[in-house]
Amino acid sequence: MPSSARPTQQQIEQAAARIAPYVHRTPVLQSRNLDELTGCKLFFKCENFQKAGAFKSRGAVNAVFSLDEQQIKQGVATHSSGNHAAALARAAALRNAKAYIVMPDNSSAVKIAAVKHYGRLVTFCSPTLTSRESTLKEVIEKTHAIEIHPYNNTTIIAGQATAAKELIEEVPDLDRLIVPVGGGGLLSGSALAAHYFAPHLTVIAAEPEQADDACQSFVQKKFVPSVHPDTIADGLRTSLGDITFPIILDHVEQVVTVSEKSIVAAMQLVWERMKIIIEPSSAVPLAALLEKKINCRSQRTGIIISGGNVDLNHLPWLSS
Amino acid sequence: MPSSARPTQQQIEQAAARIAPYVHRTPVLQSRNLDELTGCKLFFKCENFQKAGAFKSRGAVNAVFSLDEQQIKQGVATHSSGNHAAALARAAALRNAKAYIVMPDNSSAVKIAAVKHYGRLVTFCSPTLTSRESTLKEVIEKTHAIEIHPYNNTTIIAGQATAAKELIEEVPDLDRLIVPVGGGGLLSGSALAAHYFAPHLTVIAAEPEQADDACQSFVQKKFVPSVHPDTIADGLRTSLGDITFPIILDHVEQVVTVSEKSIVAAMQLVWERMKIIIEPSSAVPLAALLEKKINCRSQRTGIIISGGNVDLNHLPWLSS
Repeated sequence: MPSSARPTQQQIEQAAARIAPYVHRTPVLQSRNLDELTGCKLFFKCENFQKAGAFKSRGAVNAVFSLDEQQIKQGVATHSSGNHAAALARAAALRNAKAYIVMPDNSSAVKIAAVKHYGRLVTFCSPTLTSRESTLKEVIEKTHAIEIHPYNNTTIIAGQATAAKELIEEVPDLDRLIVPVGGGGLLSGSALAAHYFAPHLTVIAAEPEQADDACQSFVQKKFVPSVHPDTIADGLRTSLGDITFPIILDHVEQVVTVSEKSIVAAMQLVWERMKIIIEPSSAVPLAALLEKKINCRSQRTGIIISGGNVDLNHLPWLSS
Repeated sequence: MPSSARPTQQQIEQAAARIAPYVHRTPVLQSRNLDELTGCKLFFKCENFQKAGAFKSRGAVNAVFSLDEQQIKQGVATHSSGNHAAALARAAALRNAKAYIVMPDNSSAVKIAAVKHYGRLVTFCSPTLTSRESTLKEVIEKTHAIEIHPYNNTTIIAGQATAAKELIEEVPDLDRLIVPVGGGGLLSGSALAAHYFAPHLTVIAAEPEQADDACQSFVQKKFVPSVHPDTIADGLRTSLGDITFPIILDHVEQVVTVSEKSIVAAMQLVWERMKIIIEPSSAVPLAALLEKKINCRSQRTGIIISGGNVDLNHLPWLSS
């Protein structure tokens, strides 16, 4: 990784200013009930209320609005089955730019509809990484669109960092921050935000046991890819990238893993007690506290609720 | 109704001050997506985030904290299958007072658990109004507890009025307010809050077609009881009271009714687009806008989201 790929403090500050007109400053919620259950003082940064339903809007808007007039004319492209697809489609629409979104043909109808809602083009491919990458390559060769990788991209990471930055501004005396990890865009951004704006803050990553490549990579200090991830937390199935991983090694304290059962239980608990809708990936940090994988000791603990895009016709605690 | 039964402006102001330490000042949320769908500018006062999950905590706390030291020793009592039961149990627990809650034996396990969560006594009865009233009478004869009626009670109405009062403070230039109506505690309180604090504000009530006693009473200008209400909006099945009804006649502009299908569709829409959990009763005002029962014309419209207590194992759009 060239050292210039790691976002600087200034790049994160610029990202915050750049995206401010186009994304929500999401609320920070508390729950006495969940404080009692976990023994911590919890502060939930609610990116489920973010535009397009997830923190991904931050990175996507930052990336799209960082392009100059010449570049934006080429349009943007990515492959994604999830929240990045909708976020990038929305960000492109804000600049009246073209966006070419490659989606696996088994993507959920809800997620495909979200991309189409923003009036952008979807190209379907087979649901394998090889097919996704080759289809995207073809699209880019044909259109000359600029690829915006969902996480292994400096402007994306700088954008995602702004969620933790806002949380730190709102709750300056946080002791630690727990962040879910998939490809590491949110985690590396959050870890950098803590490093720059609250150096006392400990950052812990939480990951599904059944997609524990980040944990393995972290422990072995070498990249381990995500092979056959089998988790309900659909945002956390991807592998780390060569930009996100080194940042995580430098600035994350610990990576803990949780069971599928805990993820579903934590998700349901948040719905019941906090009356907010979060997706499975967002429940992973709370699951780590409930499983006591992280020592609580009454610490002031921030949790980034990454998104709220759920198919309401298929709730995990109702599936047989 | 003695004229003294109708809460005065001062009584509502006192209620606001009295309950402030014990309830949330709930947030007011907006949704550009729902604005586009309805053609209004909507402001949702989110009592689903209230203590015990519903606006009922306002009235219950006001009633319990209005009692003097001698009265509170007697304890409080009510019959309720729903949110008032939990709210009164919680309010009594805050003063270390006894609370005797009569609940029909077919109450949902979730709601019984909520009352027991606050460590108060539940007496079960048959699920008829006669059985509820006679069982409550027995309990009161034995215990000398003070009855706190769920809505036909001046201090309860004054407490419920504080939700609309807060919304008016936060959005002073509202054009109208849509409130669901069951027994009329929330509606009469909201109508009085508008009358005292924002006299320009039009208050409209929304009710399920299949429990349209308030609409009939309003049109006929005489009390029509709720007989065999058959609605998913379980908070709106009760009849108006002799305190709430005259206030509604004086200060409510219109009562509109909506279909069961619209209630479920509106509820699901709020879950999907706003990422918040609301119960069916709370969806009735939005259903009225979606059914175009209320003329929209871009007006600034407040909606009171009454509560968020839902059995997550039985979602209405999933039942066959």
